[in-house]
Amino acid sequence: MADEAQKDVQAKPVTNVIACLRSEFGERLSEALAVRERFGKDESFHASVPPDAVVTPHTTEEVSRIVSLCAEHRVPVIPYGTGTALEGHVAALHGGISINLQEMNQVVELHAEDLDVVVQPGVTRKQLNNYLRDSGLFFPIDPGADASIGGMAACRASGTNAVRYGTMRENVLALTVVLADGRVIQTSRRARKSAAGYDLTRLFVGSEGTLGVITEVTLRLYGIPEAISSAVCTFPDVDSAVNTVITTIQYGVPIARIELLDEAQVDAINRYSKTDLAVAPTLLLEFHGTDQGVKEQAEIVQEIAVDSGGSNFQWTTNTEERNRLWQARHDAAYACKALRPGGEIWATDVCVPISRLAECIRETQQDIRDFGLFAPIVGHVGDGNFHLCLLVGKDDPAESKKANELHERMVMRALGMGGTCTGEHGVGYGKLDFLVAEHGEAISVMRSIKQALDPDNIMNPGKILRV
Amino acid sequence: MADEAQKDVQAKPVTNVIACLRSEFGERLSEALAVRERFGKDESFHASVPPDAVVTPHTTEEVSRIVSLCAEHRVPVIPYGTGTALEGHVAALHGGISINLQEMNQVVELHAEDLDVVVQPGVTRKQLNNYLRDSGLFFPIDPGADASIGGMAACRASGTNAVRYGTMRENVLALTVVLADGRVIQTSRRARKSAAGYDLTRLFVGSEGTLGVITEVTLRLYGIPEAISSAVCTFPDVDSAVNTVITTIQYGVPIARIELLDEAQVDAINRYSKTDLAVAPTLLLEFHGTDQGVKEQAEIVQEIAVDSGGSNFQWTTNTEERNRLWQARHDAAYACKALRPGGEIWATDVCVPISRLAECIRETQQDIRDFGLFAPIVGHVGDGNFHLCLLVGKDDPAESKKANELHERMVMRALGMGGTCTGEHGVGYGKLDFLVAEHGEAISVMRSIKQALDPDNIMNPGKILRV
Repeated sequence: MADEAQKDVQAKPVTNVIACLRSEFGERLSEALAVRERFGKDESFHASVPPDAVVTPHTTEEVSRIVSLCAEHRVPVIPYGTGTALEGHVAALHGGISINLQEMNQVVELHAEDLDVVVQPGVTRKQLNNYLRDSGLFFPIDPGADASIGGMAACRASGTNAVRYGTMRENVLALTVVLADGRVIQTSRRARKSAAGYDLTRLFVGSEGTLGVITEVTLRLYGIPEAISSAVCTFPDVDSAVNTVITTIQYGVPIARIELLDEAQVDAINRYSKTDLAVAPTLLLEFHGTDQGVKEQAEIVQEIAVDSGGSNFQWTTNTEERNRLWQARHDAAYACKALRPGGEIWATDVCVPISRLAECIRETQQDIRDFGLFAPIVGHVGDGNFHLCLLVGKDDPAESKKANELHERMVMRALGMGGTCTGEHGVGYGKLDFLVAEHGEAISVMRSIKQALDPDNIMNPGKILRV
Repeated sequence: MADEAQKDVQAKPVTNVIACLRSEFGERLSEALAVRERFGKDESFHASVPPDAVVTPHTTEEVSRIVSLCAEHRVPVIPYGTGTALEGHVAALHGGISINLQEMNQVVELHAEDLDVVVQPGVTRKQLNNYLRDSGLFFPIDPGADASIGGMAACRASGTNAVRYGTMRENVLALTVVLADGRVIQTSRRARKSAAGYDLTRLFVGSEGTLGVITEVTLRLYGIPEAISSAVCTFPDVDSAVNTVITTIQYGVPIARIELLDEAQVDAINRYSKTDLAVAPTLLLEFHGTDQGVKEQAEIVQEIAVDSGGSNFQWTTNTEERNRLWQARHDAAYACKALRPGGEIWATDVCVPISRLAECIRETQQDIRDFGLFAPIVGHVGDGNFHLCLLVGKDDPAESKKANELHERMVMRALGMGGTCTGEHGVGYGKLDFLVAEHGEAISVMRSIKQALDPDNIMNPGKILRV
């Protein structure tokens, strides 16, 4: 009885908030369980933790009113883009209101001469590139999923092109953000650089909704290259492949993509995507430039690869062949899943200084064998970043335990090598403890900032930091 | 009498601090007026505001002890690199202790395979590049002066190579920082990218010593290009020159430097550096790549320039000629000063979206004529960033007043065009009001962060924000 009474008192604020939102948003507010369950779940293995309601605003002003109302009642706010995060970012751990930004999906302004574009947060990366096609421009950041630009900014997304074009950190010029009390700020101007005050743009990029809700994003764009060519090359071991990458980058080849697949991943892709890649450590590469430039780049890299023991260097400028290759790469996770229909995928990533990458992968592969697990590896090796695609049987606690131990060993290994606990997936609530292990005293600075900007801890609480 | 007594009470904390520092640092502490005056002055027109004492630490631990002591007594701390800032950054506006970081000037660790290096903050950019020469690597960020890496990080420095290599924002991987209470943090790991928590590195880059003292910097490095070529090209007007830049960048030419000089600046350089450049709006360009690559780049840009009305396109791969050209560019400010020996230089900068750059420069040139002032213009036009080198007669209040008005009009014009009040010089205390005009409500977020991390306002007080 006492518990029930307690629950009633606690439930009251959110009930009030929902009633107010209902009167303003009508059918754009949902309390249906199926809807709430969907919005409490991302693409990871983390279980759904449904919010109390889902509201769908259309403007920054509407988001501001939602957050103001939640602030007044100290009700949590969880921004939602496409739900393609991988560390439980959208789980409503303390209940509250999920803000569904999918209908804020307009391209606001394209500035072709300035190579920038202003978009609402619900625009997805594929939608943006379709929109841009006729302008001769493109936006390079490509996490596997067709994520929303707002979510990509919030999670500091990255992908296969980062080695040349950087991550969201380098490609967001400015943000409009609704703060924890409902105020709206612009973090920066459209100028390509600035030395004017604290870098608020970079503070909100990667803050995973814990400091504010992103409602507009200004992005850098790039000219679509005159020529693009792709290549595949096979290596006797991971070390030779990584050495090829190191030399290529030191040589200053402006390589656009350089991706590593281990044998297990190549095998999975062959089965799933009907490719016939040699089952060995493999690099997939892409070159952007002029006709002559990409030819020269490919020749230089081929020479470097052969010097490192690479073979079967095949390259193509045929668009269809290229697309097939990269589609197969992007389907890597599905390819893994297909090998074990009853299994769940645990996708995780770390990033280390590239000089330690081969060693980090080698020791992780040894662990995989020792634990008797199945976990193909793919990597954005130009950045020292790699992914483990752990396949774990549903309701197999013994296997889950082993997977947990393997995962922890991998992250701590990466930290021990001067690396980070996540290169691009983010922290969510899956990597809270690893973040503490990584940052030590600096965590207290993050906590001070969180407390200064969100004193009541209503912005996506329980993510990044335990407050 | 009351005032004197008041002063005595106020003076006490710093007297205590100085006594403690004297016992620990001995001759590495100075209270000599000549020393204090030097450390209270940068290269700008801002007058010297001497600190109460200057102390010269050798380690992070020593910096931590100095800051702890100052924190205990609420005495201001002003970090000092080389004194080459341009907005009064090192002025001890509220007295206190200047921390001279010039003897923390060791390269700590070079990781050639990872293309990064760890340095102490007093290492200068030229010292670093001399150190790196044999490794085949270089660090590209080049503000005109031979500034310290710590100062460059603190002020988010930039320079002629930023169009290709980015600014300090993109090239600092990690920092060691002494916080306002003396605690020491590491902002990040050496991994090239990370999605692990708030981006503290970018928060401290550009914070101008107001949030902490930078005591170690990890930088990205690049392979020295196989080939470098430079070019000069003359244009009938600024618009044609800027159009050439816009098309070059849209075309995806990976140009390393693209600098604009207006007629007044070309004339000043010819006189000072004995060059014989045609007196017209001029672009200086530099290409980095393979032999074949730089040749191709130069040919593409020449074609674009000719299409925009450019002429006299001359290019060279001769190292001596190249160095002479860029030395003349870097001596631009001295060249201006030489034209008016009795004058003082007021160097200032703004940055706008590149589509507005020609218009912004044109209207500023019209103002210069209307006010009857002399103020050559040089610009990192690839970024939309340009500098005004205002020459103002010493003790000429009428001219100073006109210069002030011209300056304010230029900054407000840039803001009106979606630009920023400073692209690379920083805020110091010269641009406090412009920062407020630029950021609006976002200033309150900067202020919250400042208060959270430096509640007693002892870190370089009076810079960036009025607290």
